[in-house]
Amino acid sequence: MSTHDERLEVGVTAPAGFRAAGATAGIKPSGAPDVALVVNDGPDATAAGVFTRNRVKAAPVLWSERVLAAGIVKAVVLNSGNANACTGKAGFGDTHATAEHVAARLGIGPADVAVCSTGLIGERLPVDKLLAGVDTAAKSLSRTGGGAAAEAIRTTDTRAKQVRLDGDGYVLGGMAKGAGMLAPALATMLCVLTTDAVADTDVLGDALREACRVTFERVDSDGCLSTNDTVLLLASGASGVSADPAELTDLVTAACADLAGQLLSDAEGATKDVTIEVVDAATEDDAVEVGRAIARNNLVKTALFGNDPNWGRILAAIGTTEARFRPDELDVAINGVWICRGGAAADDRAGVDLSGRAVSITVRLGAGSAAATVWTNDLTHGYVHENSAYST
Amino acid sequence: MSTHDERLEVGVTAPAGFRAAGATAGIKPSGAPDVALVVNDGPDATAAGVFTRNRVKAAPVLWSERVLAAGIVKAVVLNSGNANACTGKAGFGDTHATAEHVAARLGIGPADVAVCSTGLIGERLPVDKLLAGVDTAAKSLSRTGGGAAAEAIRTTDTRAKQVRLDGDGYVLGGMAKGAGMLAPALATMLCVLTTDAVADTDVLGDALREACRVTFERVDSDGCLSTNDTVLLLASGASGVSADPAELTDLVTAACADLAGQLLSDAEGATKDVTIEVVDAATEDDAVEVGRAIARNNLVKTALFGNDPNWGRILAAIGTTEARFRPDELDVAINGVWICRGGAAADDRAGVDLSGRAVSITVRLGAGSAAATVWTNDLTHGYVHENSAYST
Repeated sequence: MSTHDERLEVGVTAPAGFRAAGATAGIKPSGAPDVALVVNDGPDATAAGVFTRNRVKAAPVLWSERVLAAGIVKAVVLNSGNANACTGKAGFGDTHATAEHVAARLGIGPADVAVCSTGLIGERLPVDKLLAGVDTAAKSLSRTGGGAAAEAIRTTDTRAKQVRLDGDGYVLGGMAKGAGMLAPALATMLCVLTTDAVADTDVLGDALREACRVTFERVDSDGCLSTNDTVLLLASGASGVSADPAELTDLVTAACADLAGQLLSDAEGATKDVTIEVVDAATEDDAVEVGRAIARNNLVKTALFGNDPNWGRILAAIGTTEARFRPDELDVAINGVWICRGGAAADDRAGVDLSGRAVSITVRLGAGSAAATVWTNDLTHGYVHENSAYST
Repeated sequence: MSTHDERLEVGVTAPAGFRAAGATAGIKPSGAPDVALVVNDGPDATAAGVFTRNRVKAAPVLWSERVLAAGIVKAVVLNSGNANACTGKAGFGDTHATAEHVAARLGIGPADVAVCSTGLIGERLPVDKLLAGVDTAAKSLSRTGGGAAAEAIRTTDTRAKQVRLDGDGYVLGGMAKGAGMLAPALATMLCVLTTDAVADTDVLGDALREACRVTFERVDSDGCLSTNDTVLLLASGASGVSADPAELTDLVTAACADLAGQLLSDAEGATKDVTIEVVDAATEDDAVEVGRAIARNNLVKTALFGNDPNWGRILAAIGTTEARFRPDELDVAINGVWICRGGAAADDRAGVDLSGRAVSITVRLGAGSAAATVWTNDLTHGYVHENSAYST
């Protein structure tokens, strides 16, 4: 009787064709695991990536963008503890050396190795430690190593984040790290998705971009864009099943939504998970702009921390946008109670129960039929503490 | 011997031709003064105004925009304790009634009465109380009432803010309220400037817009745009001296800068006054965009609260802008120490002394010769407390 049932496996090694491992390189002062490897044994090695839009990009992002431009990834090396961001040409050299080292250990080309880093900004990577950690990880690569890899990319995450979804004859797995963009200089979101479906680079790219657009890119915990954000999708083709592009897009979107929810609920310092639904908008862009303006408004976020259904602050946030609406036609509900109709007070605010962690804000713009959802957290003493008490 | 020396007077009654008063109407539960009147006795009554760009405008803003469109203001009535924002058509009616009442008491037309309100959002004004307070204030109008008026417009301000500057044969006075956009739902900035110079509406408007552009509009304490922000400039012409437009612009700018500094240093919850100077920019707009991105970045603001010279977060904030720069050419100094050169670590961060309240951040974009300065505060436990603990 086998102790390992592949049908129950979650994470990056759930699909066939992938091995992974986690190891301790000593980059983190805590001595926790801080290096992960994900290897695609094929037969295919198609891949797609989505990266931070921050113009100050960390060295591993600059490297991996080049790798992904060719559409082939045979291995991903990830480290936590140091982001290798704002480190200049020397930092890029460190990333290059890491890719070369991984390639040599695995007998592949360095141009097929993607690199991800997360942790302190502005300090050089301890490369010797990292390369030794890579050696350790390479020796323990296994078909069940996904969990160890997910552990090794944690920074202030209180738990590892993994997912598994089943397609029509193939499997999608994944892992992510990130404390909802709320952590101290450790805000980076990293995500690696794997599938044993057969899919070319274009299909993977389209699926991943659409999935990110409506999930990770609508999680706006504190409005701060990291220098290192990276989302990768790797296909091994080991199932022999060609993915239907529409089904694959749905599956990747569901996986990203699941992981985004895990990030948000683990956001450091947060006491509320806030879902902002903007409806009756003229366009989806309008709906997203309004949702994001509310999500980023510190006065709204502190009010939610204080269990205060302060719809006036929500209206003031909406008023900063260029979305199509008339102020005297705005309706706002918090947790189902329409406390604002036509831009003025409506149902009794005392009826709004904000005692739980989940908060739902609904805004009707009265300008059309488009809609979008944006997710955020509250702004708390825990956030200020996390981000002021730790020096980098 | 007179006990009143006009040469020492500060505030809105410093220039000739103005009377003012403060009174207690009972709008504030605390029983503190909450109604102010400023009256221009002429001979002129030219005026200009700058208002919030928030599209959700409070009723007094909608009213006063119409009044200022005609360029004549003979009186300003201001109340604290209630912002009359998000109150719909009924709220506009309350503002209209207030202007009518002031006009009747003073024997002027309601279309020459500007109205300003600050305080709670989303609740109707207690109009009966306000009108009774107006009667009290009207009875105590005096040439030395500027200080009482400045007191009466305070909300969470710990002190009244006034200014006086002398031009070539005329005087400029002013008062402001606002706790640096940091107060709980009471973020409104109100400012009334007065002068006894002779100046037509166009000259006043040009001077006020230019002054606001480089002062109040570059104070960005928490990025939240109020529904009620109003800055007014009234000229009585009582000195008989025609103001040179350039000198008047300089004087108004200096007065606004002085008041902006007073607002910032009184920002509730703040422990740092932060000056962000962006130099070597391709354009002034680029410099402002970069300064604002830094000023609004919660990770930068919490780092400053923690006395952490975290230049990596500053670079990440710069990277979110569309300003012209190359990441590997960015230099950053904090309190005079160039801790980042060429986008990477430079001088020792241990040399940065952040123990004081004043913090100076200098960013060199290396893209031209334009510059701009933006002012902000840190993000603190006090901010979260102020904005979460008080329910509106």
